[in-house]
Amino acid sequence: MRSVSTQYRNSSIVSVDISEDSVAQAAQKVRAAALTNIWFQQGDIFHLPFTAQSFDHVFVCFVLEHLKQPLVALQKLKTYLKPGGTITVIEGDHGSAYFHPDSESAQAAIHCQVELQARAGGNALIGRCLYPLLVTAGYREVWVSPRMVYVDSSKPELVDGFTKKTFTAMIEGVRQSAIEEGLIDPVTFDNGIKDLYRTTGPDGTFCYTFFKAMGKA
Amino acid sequence: MRSVSTQYRNSSIVSVDISEDSVAQAAQKVRAAALTNIWFQQGDIFHLPFTAQSFDHVFVCFVLEHLKQPLVALQKLKTYLKPGGTITVIEGDHGSAYFHPDSESAQAAIHCQVELQARAGGNALIGRCLYPLLVTAGYREVWVSPRMVYVDSSKPELVDGFTKKTFTAMIEGVRQSAIEEGLIDPVTFDNGIKDLYRTTGPDGTFCYTFFKAMGKA
Repeated sequence: MRSVSTQYRNSSIVSVDISEDSVAQAAQKVRAAALTNIWFQQGDIFHLPFTAQSFDHVFVCFVLEHLKQPLVALQKLKTYLKPGGTITVIEGDHGSAYFHPDSESAQAAIHCQVELQARAGGNALIGRCLYPLLVTAGYREVWVSPRMVYVDSSKPELVDGFTKKTFTAMIEGVRQSAIEEGLIDPVTFDNGIKDLYRTTGPDGTFCYTFFKAMGKA
Repeated sequence: MRSVSTQYRNSSIVSVDISEDSVAQAAQKVRAAALTNIWFQQGDIFHLPFTAQSFDHVFVCFVLEHLKQPLVALQKLKTYLKPGGTITVIEGDHGSAYFHPDSESAQAAIHCQVELQARAGGNALIGRCLYPLLVTAGYREVWVSPRMVYVDSSKPELVDGFTKKTFTAMIEGVRQSAIEEGLIDPVTFDNGIKDLYRTTGPDGTFCYTFFKAMGKA
């Protein structure tokens, strides 16, 4: 919120989410921070109530990975941009995760998350696809800037905040679904999670890449 | 050579390779460039004829990946460094290669290269291991800086110079050995190579990461 309030204090920001709850939580935080330039809109990205060519910029983060039709979403969002308006998209790519010590069980556990997201209509490997998606959606001057997260034990805040509490926690979260859908047996999954935690040891390393893409309407 | 002659004109550089031929070729280039501060030494990294604590810096690039004992090599190299001298190591990691469109055949072809290098005693996935290797070898203040190569069709010089002529050409180079060793059938391998070239199309992307590690004796 600090960066919004200082960098964008003269901007009018509309914040959208499909979840009423998330919108309500965000709105409460904004009120608590006494920010007056942020509005909220619960809505479906494919049916938003905005006027064509009414935004200078659209920012989309960790959304496309969940959509059956990310290309259509990008095309719709483009209609809301003023001519020359810009878009920023940030997505992860679980195929960019590799680590030391390497582990087939850990790779199998990660693959469960990728497969479950695919079965739900999403794409956990979408980061590498942002360039063709934005170009095909009609954006110009598309520029993709990968942001690699590299973790070793000289970076304890990343060991804890990223490898353990972000990535491994997310993979742990699909345990029940992965087993119920018959994607993996419990022993292999649990070994995989153990091996992911093993990469947070003094001699472990962990790599993951987020993709930031920018384009112009 | 330009950077050596300008940045390091007051340094004395000893350039080492295990191949007599490579040393001879390099020496010829140095003579042609009229550089006078570079010496050459053919030698085995495990048995070099240098005096202990006689170098300010050691630079190792694409060497450890081929060694059965990369840790021992790093320990040996450390003995040649003056107290407080530094080392720079650069290595790739073929497990960092991913691309769009994704392809199981392409992944299988890459895996052949990784497996052949492992059978020869090397490690094509060594990039992610540089941190523990340098720390275990006794270097201090170890710092790893990954350098990701991201390629899409907005970067034609990387499409041609990296995806086609560096990475895919290298994988193509193991075709015969991979088939002879029974790692893959010719059809799958050739499909894999075709799919790697497919990533150089207008909608393709390709990712690879080199690891640069620095440490202090």
